[in-house]
Amino acid sequence: MRIIVDAMGGDHAPLAPLEGAVRAVRELGVTVVLCGDEQKITAVAKEHGYSMEGIEILHAEDVITMHDAPTEIVKSKEGCSMAVGLKALREGKGDAFVSAGNSGALLVGATMLTRRIKGITRAAMAPVLPTANGHAILMDAGANVECRPEMLMQFAMMGSVYMEKVMGVKEPKVGLINNGSEECKGRELEQETYQLLKASDLHFYGNIEAREVPSGNCQVLVTDGFTGNIVLKLYEGLGSFFAKKMKAMFTGIGKLGALFIMKKLRAFKDSMDYKKVGGAVLLGIAYPVIKGHGSSDGGAMFHAIRQAKTCVDGKIVETITEALAAQKLRSKQKSEA
Amino acid sequence: MRIIVDAMGGDHAPLAPLEGAVRAVRELGVTVVLCGDEQKITAVAKEHGYSMEGIEILHAEDVITMHDAPTEIVKSKEGCSMAVGLKALREGKGDAFVSAGNSGALLVGATMLTRRIKGITRAAMAPVLPTANGHAILMDAGANVECRPEMLMQFAMMGSVYMEKVMGVKEPKVGLINNGSEECKGRELEQETYQLLKASDLHFYGNIEAREVPSGNCQVLVTDGFTGNIVLKLYEGLGSFFAKKMKAMFTGIGKLGALFIMKKLRAFKDSMDYKKVGGAVLLGIAYPVIKGHGSSDGGAMFHAIRQAKTCVDGKIVETITEALAAQKLRSKQKSEA
Repeated sequence: MRIIVDAMGGDHAPLAPLEGAVRAVRELGVTVVLCGDEQKITAVAKEHGYSMEGIEILHAEDVITMHDAPTEIVKSKEGCSMAVGLKALREGKGDAFVSAGNSGALLVGATMLTRRIKGITRAAMAPVLPTANGHAILMDAGANVECRPEMLMQFAMMGSVYMEKVMGVKEPKVGLINNGSEECKGRELEQETYQLLKASDLHFYGNIEAREVPSGNCQVLVTDGFTGNIVLKLYEGLGSFFAKKMKAMFTGIGKLGALFIMKKLRAFKDSMDYKKVGGAVLLGIAYPVIKGHGSSDGGAMFHAIRQAKTCVDGKIVETITEALAAQKLRSKQKSEA
Repeated sequence: MRIIVDAMGGDHAPLAPLEGAVRAVRELGVTVVLCGDEQKITAVAKEHGYSMEGIEILHAEDVITMHDAPTEIVKSKEGCSMAVGLKALREGKGDAFVSAGNSGALLVGATMLTRRIKGITRAAMAPVLPTANGHAILMDAGANVECRPEMLMQFAMMGSVYMEKVMGVKEPKVGLINNGSEECKGRELEQETYQLLKASDLHFYGNIEAREVPSGNCQVLVTDGFTGNIVLKLYEGLGSFFAKKMKAMFTGIGKLGALFIMKKLRAFKDSMDYKKVGGAVLLGIAYPVIKGHGSSDGGAMFHAIRQAKTCVDGKIVETITEALAAQKLRSKQKSEA
């Protein structure tokens, strides 16, 4: 298996992507194609004494930064490592793509250069949140600020496939994030989506209030990209806020006790950190594309690459394609009946 | 001062409202008008040996339950304690109203029976959230699922008045909850509201990402009622989720240590409990109206009554009215200039 990795994306590039690649080659037995400035990559490898065995370099002149407008990836920055990597993916030079670079650019690039799965209206940026009894995928967490019911319906289907094939959850429950549990709740978007999900053969839980999200009653959380972004970032913000608050509460209790508790608090903070679960997956693209967090270190990059491998192993793109075909068939039969 | 209290609203009525009233008379020196079934109220008072000194009863035959549709308060349930209390408020028989009953019914009732402040398009349900360095009012937390920019602009103004007059925050900062900090971020609603707030004489902080909400950088959080409801309930849900998680982490560390930590955890959970801050205020109504949490006990009801008194003392309705007039004047001058 060949995983293409953007060697220039993220705060710690190219070192972090390189370290992730080295570990992935060793532990996962994959070939990694590092996309970026060949001179810089080899220099960093030499400097840190990393062997390039199992690693290929796909040279790219340019880099797209966090300050570049996303659309620049198909304009002035078409020669950047992210664009070159996504084109290589499209051309079958790899099985999946991983980048810790500009999220917006990755979404535009994946959509325009790699393309979506035929029949998918919009790709979703989908992080996995920790819950009381496991994990839940959030569809969409910011890729599509405005959504239509059909889009949310596809998000629900793709999220279910991901949780089943990649996270190993049998019959994942789909919850529609809403401002109340009753069927009549929400805006037109939620009310119409509710009916679509109810009529689908997904495991629809019904509306889920934000209060219930951490409970883990649903493994697929469906909402528009604006609301999803609020949920994701409040999860993140409250996690560190609570950790700080607890830390303050436990100060002045003696060195040993403090040490013990700080260790617990760190563990707690890590368990709440959605970055540790791996990157966010771009669901709906014709190949697995993983967005690593901008602050990813070598370890985080390794986890993102492993996540990409699990997507390939789990055949998520193929399964989504089949599910779409089955959906089409059912609605065709319904309309004929 | 006379505070009208719905004696039949909430899970523990009429005992909790009665206990809140008794304590309010004693500690705040207010007169409380208990609205509800006279026989039941006096029976409970006698049973628990509470003196009715400083407490008047305004008899109401009926009760609106959590299962009644909100609009029933102006239809089949127009004789319920909530409706009778709100009409009495409108007729000047009291200075403020407190209820722990059906939120939707309270919103409809306050709007139709007590009426809004002249010039206010919509009333907002506004709870106060704990933050790292104090509190922030959330406008709107669910009263208005769909909003227009002018509504959010009024929410920002009313929230600023509340934080200044009731919470004693000088020059409260107004943040527009959005999916990014840049001016261009969000939906049409956020983009247009941003320009209104920028042009206003409020202390506009700019867009605030959900991640930043707990930081306390803003004391007035502006958003539509759908998004606000997500923020409020995720705050609540994650609070108890984290407390449970921490509890699990600290089990099996010996009885004494456990006791110590559980005490800390309870304190933490309480500090995160927005109910403890008092009820949610219905801003935009011609009199102060406080919504106590359905699960309110006597203590929570007392806090809600105290909050109502602070709203009257702080003259929030008068201040909002003046602010509206000033706003009108400014825009008139602008249009003439």
